[in-house]
Amino acid sequence: MSVESRRPRVGIIGTGAIGGFYGLMLARAGYDVHFLLRSEFETVARQGLLVNSAVHGELHLKPVQAYCSAADMPPCDWLLVGTKSTGNAALGPIISQVAAPNATVLLLQNGLAVEDQLRKVLPDSVHIVGGLCFVCVNRVAPGVIAHQAFGAVSVGYHSGPAVDEASRMAIVEACAALFKTAGIDAPVMASLPQARWQKLVWNVPYNGLSALLQAGTSQLMADPDSQALLRALMDEVVQGAEACGHALPPGFAEHLLAVTQGMPDYRPSMYHDLVEKRPLELDAIYARPLTAALAAGFDMPRVRALYQALAFIDRGNRPASEE
Amino acid sequence: MSVESRRPRVGIIGTGAIGGFYGLMLARAGYDVHFLLRSEFETVARQGLLVNSAVHGELHLKPVQAYCSAADMPPCDWLLVGTKSTGNAALGPIISQVAAPNATVLLLQNGLAVEDQLRKVLPDSVHIVGGLCFVCVNRVAPGVIAHQAFGAVSVGYHSGPAVDEASRMAIVEACAALFKTAGIDAPVMASLPQARWQKLVWNVPYNGLSALLQAGTSQLMADPDSQALLRALMDEVVQGAEACGHALPPGFAEHLLAVTQGMPDYRPSMYHDLVEKRPLELDAIYARPLTAALAAGFDMPRVRALYQALAFIDRGNRPASEE
Repeated sequence: MSVESRRPRVGIIGTGAIGGFYGLMLARAGYDVHFLLRSEFETVARQGLLVNSAVHGELHLKPVQAYCSAADMPPCDWLLVGTKSTGNAALGPIISQVAAPNATVLLLQNGLAVEDQLRKVLPDSVHIVGGLCFVCVNRVAPGVIAHQAFGAVSVGYHSGPAVDEASRMAIVEACAALFKTAGIDAPVMASLPQARWQKLVWNVPYNGLSALLQAGTSQLMADPDSQALLRALMDEVVQGAEACGHALPPGFAEHLLAVTQGMPDYRPSMYHDLVEKRPLELDAIYARPLTAALAAGFDMPRVRALYQALAFIDRGNRPASEE
Repeated sequence: MSVESRRPRVGIIGTGAIGGFYGLMLARAGYDVHFLLRSEFETVARQGLLVNSAVHGELHLKPVQAYCSAADMPPCDWLLVGTKSTGNAALGPIISQVAAPNATVLLLQNGLAVEDQLRKVLPDSVHIVGGLCFVCVNRVAPGVIAHQAFGAVSVGYHSGPAVDEASRMAIVEACAALFKTAGIDAPVMASLPQARWQKLVWNVPYNGLSALLQAGTSQLMADPDSQALLRALMDEVVQGAEACGHALPPGFAEHLLAVTQGMPDYRPSMYHDLVEKRPLELDAIYARPLTAALAAGFDMPRVRALYQALAFIDRGNRPASEE
């Protein structure tokens, strides 16, 4: 906890759909939340943050403690990182500026080994906790977020000054308590890599096919061919996880299909990234799992084919200035 | 040969890029060629047929013996079928009306077992010859065809009144002679199924990916990921062919990649079918090879994934009136 405040102070690095939603929920629960923004700074500073939630109703946060530069933010005990994993290598100086001594950085991203990337650019004194968000949220306009369903964040210790299991568990439990106070379910994960593989069983098929086929979950589930492809991709990821030593619960793919079937139509972030010409999170969600599974002796042929098709699309999707 | 004419009479069923190109070449060589058209009948009857060829220059055929109904056409000794394989089941009455006794129907389509479909709807007296076109042509406007490269048609006997090998060979040789007179290379195929599998090694990757990724051959070859995917798909088709008893020449995939590398940028028919909202030829090029290979014990995982993605796209691509 920082010395400047008795309330835990939370910094939101990247106020998109994920950062905005959880930051707003924490602020409403009474935490001292500071939001770092880029292009949407002026709008949010003026209008506040709005979450239109199918679960909680219309939630408005105003005023918002908004910043357009990390240098202006106070030191934070908790840092929630909701930026795209494609930018992780550049986060070092930003997070280092905002982190209180012994701060905990909670990385709210999909994909494999995203924490390893961040570890390389952060001081040793900072804890890194991995967070997996089971939530359907989208940014619909500057400062406006639609929350369609769910909300839980699974948390697991990655690395940092906590050297023994008990002190690691204390950090993760504190992290879970932070969310629970705000009404957000936050299960503690026994194994972060296992949990990341488990989440990939959903992200690999749905994120990629939503972008490739320009469709939401309902359409992908309703068509017999795309549904069969979703299932085949899931089965490959389950086998890839097993090859890497992470046996998943029996019937896990069926479970995810049933959960998705019951969801409102949802377009995962990769769909929106493609439409809005942002880089796709292909390394974290595809390339690293493919490399890990192949090193463990299992190639995932359909996953690789999907990755290759998406990599082709991603290269052609950058604004001319990036070429 | 029909009794009405000493020149062989050729009927073109479906005057798109393939039918128009070969029909025009045969007409220029002196054959008595009759073209069946649908939507482009009036334009072609008025303006003739134009082939802008990178090989032969600008070729104009005018007047064209054009028909909008098979009932008006004279009986033909040779029928060249250049329609989409998706419409084969409906070709019976049309071809039966135009076929002279003992006519030979040359089916100029891609994919597997397209002749089997046609056999079911044609009288026993008619020969069916399969034809594989190695040609880059596209219809660019009504009655206007761009010919970018190549032109050969490989021919092989499928079924009909020729009961022994010698009489089958006589039909196929006559078919080859027809093309050769018009300056078109026409190798005789020892095995039609083998040749159809061999051609699939090109069509499966390039047709499907050009539609899925909305790109021509040059772009697909230049990108390292799509090139690797092309190659992986080719390898699967080669293995599928082998499982079905059709060993292909060693190094065949490399050969095709090199040939395509040397081609002008080309967008295969499936690309154009998608853009123009026509049904994609998925049964002939994907579903039937997948079924045949699976029955022989080999599933083609990437080919199946591509097929499933294309089937999803195809269903969403039909005009509302077809739904």
